[in-house]
Amino acid sequence: MNMNSSVSVFDASLYSPLFTQQEMKKIWSENYQIECWLKFEKAIAKVQAELGIIPLDAVISIETACDSLEIDWQRLIKETQVIGMPIKPIIDQVADNGDDLVKKYLHWGCTTQDLLDSSLSMRLKESLTLIRKQLIALGNQLSNSIVEHQNTVMVARTNAIDASATTWGLQMSSYLNEICRHLSRLEQIYPRAIVGMYGGAVGNLASVGSQGMDVRDKLCAELGLTVPQGLNNASQDQNVEVIQFFALIHGTLCRIANDIELMCRTPIFEAMEGKKGGGSSTMPHKTNPRDCNMLQTLSRMGWMYASGAPNMLDQQDVRSASMRMLSWNLMPEACLAVSTALFRAKELFEHLVINVNRMRENFNASYYFIMSESVMMALAEKIGRQSAYKLMQQVLRGDNDKKSMIDILLSNKLITDVLSDSEILESCNPSNYLGCNDSLIQETLSSFSRIKSNL
Amino acid sequence: MNMNSSVSVFDASLYSPLFTQQEMKKIWSENYQIECWLKFEKAIAKVQAELGIIPLDAVISIETACDSLEIDWQRLIKETQVIGMPIKPIIDQVADNGDDLVKKYLHWGCTTQDLLDSSLSMRLKESLTLIRKQLIALGNQLSNSIVEHQNTVMVARTNAIDASATTWGLQMSSYLNEICRHLSRLEQIYPRAIVGMYGGAVGNLASVGSQGMDVRDKLCAELGLTVPQGLNNASQDQNVEVIQFFALIHGTLCRIANDIELMCRTPIFEAMEGKKGGGSSTMPHKTNPRDCNMLQTLSRMGWMYASGAPNMLDQQDVRSASMRMLSWNLMPEACLAVSTALFRAKELFEHLVINVNRMRENFNASYYFIMSESVMMALAEKIGRQSAYKLMQQVLRGDNDKKSMIDILLSNKLITDVLSDSEILESCNPSNYLGCNDSLIQETLSSFSRIKSNL
Amino acid sequence: MNMNSSVSVFDASLYSPLFTQQEMKKIWSENYQIECWLKFEKAIAKVQAELGIIPLDAVISIETACDSLEIDWQRLIKETQVIGMPIKPIIDQVADNGDDLVKKYLHWGCTTQDLLDSSLSMRLKESLTLIRKQLIALGNQLSNSIVEHQNTVMVARTNAIDASATTWGLQMSSYLNEICRHLSRLEQIYPRAIVGMYGGAVGNLASVGSQGMDVRDKLCAELGLTVPQGLNNASQDQNVEVIQFFALIHGTLCRIANDIELMCRTPIFEAMEGKKGGGSSTMPHKTNPRDCNMLQTLSRMGWMYASGAPNMLDQQDVRSASMRMLSWNLMPEACLAVSTALFRAKELFEHLVINVNRMRENFNASYYFIMSESVMMALAEKIGRQSAYKLMQQVLRGDNDKKSMIDILLSNKLITDVLSDSEILESCNPSNYLGCNDSLIQETLSSFSRIKSNL
Amino acid sequence: MNMNSSVSVFDASLYSPLFTQQEMKKIWSENYQIECWLKFEKAIAKVQAELGIIPLDAVISIETACDSLEIDWQRLIKETQVIGMPIKPIIDQVADNGDDLVKKYLHWGCTTQDLLDSSLSMRLKESLTLIRKQLIALGNQLSNSIVEHQNTVMVARTNAIDASATTWGLQMSSYLNEICRHLSRLEQIYPRAIVGMYGGAVGNLASVGSQGMDVRDKLCAELGLTVPQGLNNASQDQNVEVIQFFALIHGTLCRIANDIELMCRTPIFEAMEGKKGGGSSTMPHKTNPRDCNMLQTLSRMGWMYASGAPNMLDQQDVRSASMRMLSWNLMPEACLAVSTALFRAKELFEHLVINVNRMRENFNASYYFIMSESVMMALAEKIGRQSAYKLMQQVLRGDNDKKSMIDILLSNKLITDVLSDSEILESCNPSNYLGCNDSLIQETLSSFSRIKSNL
Repeated sequence: MNMNSSVSVFDASLYSPLFTQQEMKKIWSENYQIECWLKFEKAIAKVQAELGIIPLDAVISIETACDSLEIDWQRLIKETQVIGMPIKPIIDQVADNGDDLVKKYLHWGCTTQDLLDSSLSMRLKESLTLIRKQLIALGNQLSNSIVEHQNTVMVARTNAIDASATTWGLQMSSYLNEICRHLSRLEQIYPRAIVGMYGGAVGNLASVGSQGMDVRDKLCAELGLTVPQGLNNASQDQNVEVIQFFALIHGTLCRIANDIELMCRTPIFEAMEGKKGGGSSTMPHKTNPRDCNMLQTLSRMGWMYASGAPNMLDQQDVRSASMRMLSWNLMPEACLAVSTALFRAKELFEHLVINVNRMRENFNASYYFIMSESVMMALAEKIGRQSAYKLMQQVLRGDNDKKSMIDILLSNKLITDVLSDSEILESCNPSNYLGCNDSLIQETLSSFSRIKSNL
Repeated sequence: MNMNSSVSVFDASLYSPLFTQQEMKKIWSENYQIECWLKFEKAIAKVQAELGIIPLDAVISIETACDSLEIDWQRLIKETQVIGMPIKPIIDQVADNGDDLVKKYLHWGCTTQDLLDSSLSMRLKESLTLIRKQLIALGNQLSNSIVEHQNTVMVARTNAIDASATTWGLQMSSYLNEICRHLSRLEQIYPRAIVGMYGGAVGNLASVGSQGMDVRDKLCAELGLTVPQGLNNASQDQNVEVIQFFALIHGTLCRIANDIELMCRTPIFEAMEGKKGGGSSTMPHKTNPRDCNMLQTLSRMGWMYASGAPNMLDQQDVRSASMRMLSWNLMPEACLAVSTALFRAKELFEHLVINVNRMRENFNASYYFIMSESVMMALAEKIGRQSAYKLMQQVLRGDNDKKSMIDILLSNKLITDVLSDSEILESCNPSNYLGCNDSLIQETLSSFSRIKSNL
Repeated sequence: MNMNSSVSVFDASLYSPLFTQQEMKKIWSENYQIECWLKFEKAIAKVQAELGIIPLDAVISIETACDSLEIDWQRLIKETQVIGMPIKPIIDQVADNGDDLVKKYLHWGCTTQDLLDSSLSMRLKESLTLIRKQLIALGNQLSNSIVEHQNTVMVARTNAIDASATTWGLQMSSYLNEICRHLSRLEQIYPRAIVGMYGGAVGNLASVGSQGMDVRDKLCAELGLTVPQGLNNASQDQNVEVIQFFALIHGTLCRIANDIELMCRTPIFEAMEGKKGGGSSTMPHKTNPRDCNMLQTLSRMGWMYASGAPNMLDQQDVRSASMRMLSWNLMPEACLAVSTALFRAKELFEHLVINVNRMRENFNASYYFIMSESVMMALAEKIGRQSAYKLMQQVLRGDNDKKSMIDILLSNKLITDVLSDSEILESCNPSNYLGCNDSLIQETLSSFSRIKSNL
Repeated sequence: MNMNSSVSVFDASLYSPLFTQQEMKKIWSENYQIECWLKFEKAIAKVQAELGIIPLDAVISIETACDSLEIDWQRLIKETQVIGMPIKPIIDQVADNGDDLVKKYLHWGCTTQDLLDSSLSMRLKESLTLIRKQLIALGNQLSNSIVEHQNTVMVARTNAIDASATTWGLQMSSYLNEICRHLSRLEQIYPRAIVGMYGGAVGNLASVGSQGMDVRDKLCAELGLTVPQGLNNASQDQNVEVIQFFALIHGTLCRIANDIELMCRTPIFEAMEGKKGGGSSTMPHKTNPRDCNMLQTLSRMGWMYASGAPNMLDQQDVRSASMRMLSWNLMPEACLAVSTALFRAKELFEHLVINVNRMRENFNASYYFIMSESVMMALAEKIGRQSAYKLMQQVLRGDNDKKSMIDILLSNKLITDVLSDSEILESCNPSNYLGCNDSLIQETLSSFSRIKSNL
């Protein structure tokens, strides 16, 4: 048997395809992490040479030492275990791999945190860029479906009970509204999330002296990161808010899954996950809504990360390691969970089969009782709201088992005294009671287009 | 004994002064909640009359019925219990209190959710305005202290161990940086948080027909709320993000409390909560840091709310009541916790006694070992970083118990071969190793001023 | 307007009937809390007099001072605010209300924590006793319904899709199994939860000298609390586990609500909440499943408390106030939430209307496809499991829209080659495919009876 | 560069040694998981043959097919991705690897859940056994240290302020009390946690007919699992409570870390982590308390899992996949976090250096003010508690900067009127004010011995 000793759903061979998105997994892989650390060392050397802090020759030496490094993994793992942090061990290997200039000027005026935090921001930058791309892709997918189903009438349900009429397009547009807000949020947190870190041992840049601010600014520019404002060594708010933001995205995707899972239920059958798969190991007829299941599962994971994240704020002194180390666990898992969920949601809509006829039939199945507000408002036009509400309650309170509300109304004198037969029939036609369906949808679609084009 | 049957720390007479802020408590009181519902009914009537949907006379009748309402609390409580929602019961009392026009046109085309959600936004608007005011007040307080202590040298601690030199002013500026970011965040979430709701039974404005969008827009303007984009009946993201935002504020305040509580510890004694109080019931000498304690407690409450909040996103259909009702519990408690914490933090700094001399003495107490990086960097200038680090490690590894590092260095030939005595002494003076202390502080202070003036 | 300034759902007049259970609210009321503190002072005096530590006369004086105390609430509130803790203020009022013996011997060798912790355990004792009673009542209610519906055939659903056949009695028995486990857990945590506290300033009983252990043991006996083992001043595990336990109870009730809410959905209509109420303010025909809604809401509150509770374990030194104060907020709310939920669940089952006919009709509505495993197992008896699974998949893969599986099977030669017509019909009758339904139910009912009789 | 694409701290080569315990990692490895599934298939075959449900020959065929299986990982991964569950894919490979008897009788009457749940319990059984072993080992370690430091006097701190006298032995005994309770809890949850699952498609054992209960009972015996009571397909309470229990263990370890981290602080210096390592990459003098840091980090992870776990209870129908899949992520991570923390805590105490002299010196550093309760109780013996408290407050309120309380008392007539000089000196000696230190410690040590010997 092939030896697979992985334990995490993000790394184990059977489960990781279900819990990870390919591009995101690369961003958070250990290899790429080390690449970012080396990129930092090269960048800081370049910047310090430009400012005359270290000799220009040192830059090339440092670049060469980094680029040609053959990591001694056994040593790296062992030293990381002893020290509890991986930076000094990797720096030592680079120094050993370089000439005297490297040994002299590598990691000049830096501390472990500078690399850990800046490399986290480097990977967050790529992660957020990927997530923006995924949000837009899902938004585009939804936009198309919304246009297609703008007038697909379906039962509107509230508090789990059939309530009135709506369209599948309008319901989907409510998902798109949230995605619009998520895109706005992403723009707002992005500059904070990709902030650089360079402060030396205790954050005041003492080890690089008077040129500290310049080094910091140029380093951030070189790495494509935001220049921080003042001292931030203990601050983790910008990391926490990223994970909190992901929780909001999961909310949208979980709601989509809740809706579609319900629509897939056998007695409702308004939708079906169109992909192959989801079979039972013992019931041959059965197809489980696996995309919906996964979206629900991943949302709980995302919310769990959001509940653990504020602990990172429980900082002390210039900084304390304990709560910072939480990000080693939380950040990759949180990024993977949200990215995987966005991928599954897009898959879901791409293959989703909507049963338009069944949507209309389910409407009928309520015996038209769900048109009661429509009728009540038609009555209210003539006898006022409170009287109309009371009249309808009285009329509908009787023994109406398996009788259509239309028949009840047409045969009730209290009603026919106020409304003509055709008025009753019209008020019971769901297509006549969609209100501002089209305007609301248009508002959403336009807004999404505008937001996209502004990005 | 006075009968006090309250159970919650927010309402019980002994605990509520510790857990609530006066203005915030008013905003979330039951009375004010009902006031907001009545304000909604009056506003919707006014707007619908302007658009010719209901007669102009109905507006005055509705206003009169609302303003003159003497609530029958027994009936209101009982009906709320039966229905499970308070809106229909209160509407019925207004209708009963009014003339025929009220009975006919009150609550026209509205549903329970329209009132619940809009009135939540109305109270959030006031809450966020109060919190902005409190953040600025705390920022001002901090700014003054930062200027005062810009050069108050103290031990910089990392991972709980004395590390190097810093200033109390710079450390406080790190709190102010977070407050600056909180103010930016507040501006960004504010328009989303104060969104209005008007959609009728299933959100598509069917009950007001073609003029639905106009009614909605004018209503929001009348109530001072943001106009929503499209259908949002099931959406709770804008509420969740408010509670998440509060968690970030709690992070800053908890960190402040962690730092100051440590500084108050008897063997460190760099600070003292200056207010009377905090006494032990059995130890007469003792003063407990109650403001710090409360800030830590309140932060955990705030984080707990943030961990519960994403459940509100677990929505289904056009909307479902279950997860929406969570906001009845979460919103008031979350707003009170953060507002109380901001109040306690301001109190803390107003009365805080800083022991400047002790800060310097504690510095000495480390036998100057914490100036090791400073010396290492002085060595590095001459022999390179890696050699300098190794040299210092070797020199300091010996039996140095209760010996000042200065003495060790002055008497070690390996060191004196590289550095002169005066170079050693200078590199051991913390005031010489503060790096960009002043520039970093200035950057923070300027930024806070700029943000304030832009609000 | 009646002035109601309460903010919490547990105290506000409109919401508290929805969020509190009467008996539990009394246990956690402020009045009762003070009663417990006075009970403690009387008990410690009695015990110390018995051991000759204080004079016997002091006991009567202290009892009189406690029993005749007219609390000066203004003073009590003010002093609590100043000190941050309520114990010294109340002790001072008792002392002022007593003679010299009271002033001399009240609160002898006690500290604030002794009263806070012991009084918490006193109220937990009553709370857990109430919850045990509620669990048994719900269990009894369920037992009756299980017997009634032992053979009420309904669709068995897995992963949201109709799967096979089961009975409503068996499904309910799965709730009762959890309640059995909850009762076992309650017995196990009970002695830990009701532990007494008496240790003086730093827990080592220094203030009562050599008789400390005796005082402690007798005090616990007097108060009906468990004697602690060793020093526990910083320990909060026994409180956290109570809140965690409540989260498990909420899980059962939430699952019940999820199931019944689904059964109440209009197109399924297998159940209906039988109580009056739950009406919509705009849709006259509609009854919302309010008990289910509330159970779902309360479960999220209970889980939120469980997520906040471990913070209480973040203790330091002999004890630290910050995290202990969390229990002032968490304990009453957690006890109220679970007790209210148990009450609502019992209400739900008492009034629940089960639509037995519809359960059978819904079964038919799946065109018998959900009997596929039953047929597959009949085939497997003859051709083996893997062949049978593949055969059924092949047969059912065709264009089966709106065709009964029975018809498909009867007309398919591959099937009829293996099974006779009557074998097919029998294997498609759900009542023939209930397996160990009765034995499983009996196992559960017997176990519940046994557990009850052992309490 | 060696390609390492792992992302999780539990699997990445640099971080996993910090976040995993060797034995626990094996238990949760993917390989072992598959081993458990095959063990299940062999066991069910054996049991069914014994009961005459399948032919005896099939058992040997199935065992052979399982034991000789060379997994086709590419196929397994791909099919798992398509189906969303790994069981059918692995069963298919076993069937393909076997003769006709295997194809016919493998997985007879089983469903995916039977394997997933039973194999989870199998691994939980091993995990809990390991954790019991680790708890006892830590308890033994602590017992030894407690005996050693039973009379090591140190400052007792409450609410972060020096309060009175205690011993390091007594403080450690408070950790051991919690461990005793954890061992009791472990015994209580163990039988629930290791419950077996066998129910077929919808839990009623329909696919094995009348012998269902026998098969279930014998299968559980064969696998060493507890026989379940009734139907439990949707129940997750026994899994959630395991994760909740781990949160309590983390609480003890976090508290230990909080205490020792503080004792390691430079100005307190009562303790030092004795292991090599924890160095700073830029400050040569510095050793960071890495074990404490890790315990704090791991505790937050453990609490986060406990906050996510109740979501598993949000079940519906006979079962729903979404929330069950959470355990794939939560269980391994939770088991690894607690096991790693127990390992680190044991390491911490094994290498911990206690600075006994410094403990006594720190005592002196408070100028004896922390003996105020001791003096107050000496006064109270003569003038009553309230008078004594007030007198001490008055005496200590003056300008006492840097003056020993002993001197203040000896020179204050109000005090010397009541107490003789030697009484004052005696009441200021911390060793005279340790109360029941020895009895409390003995109580704890005896209890731990008793619990151990009962396991």
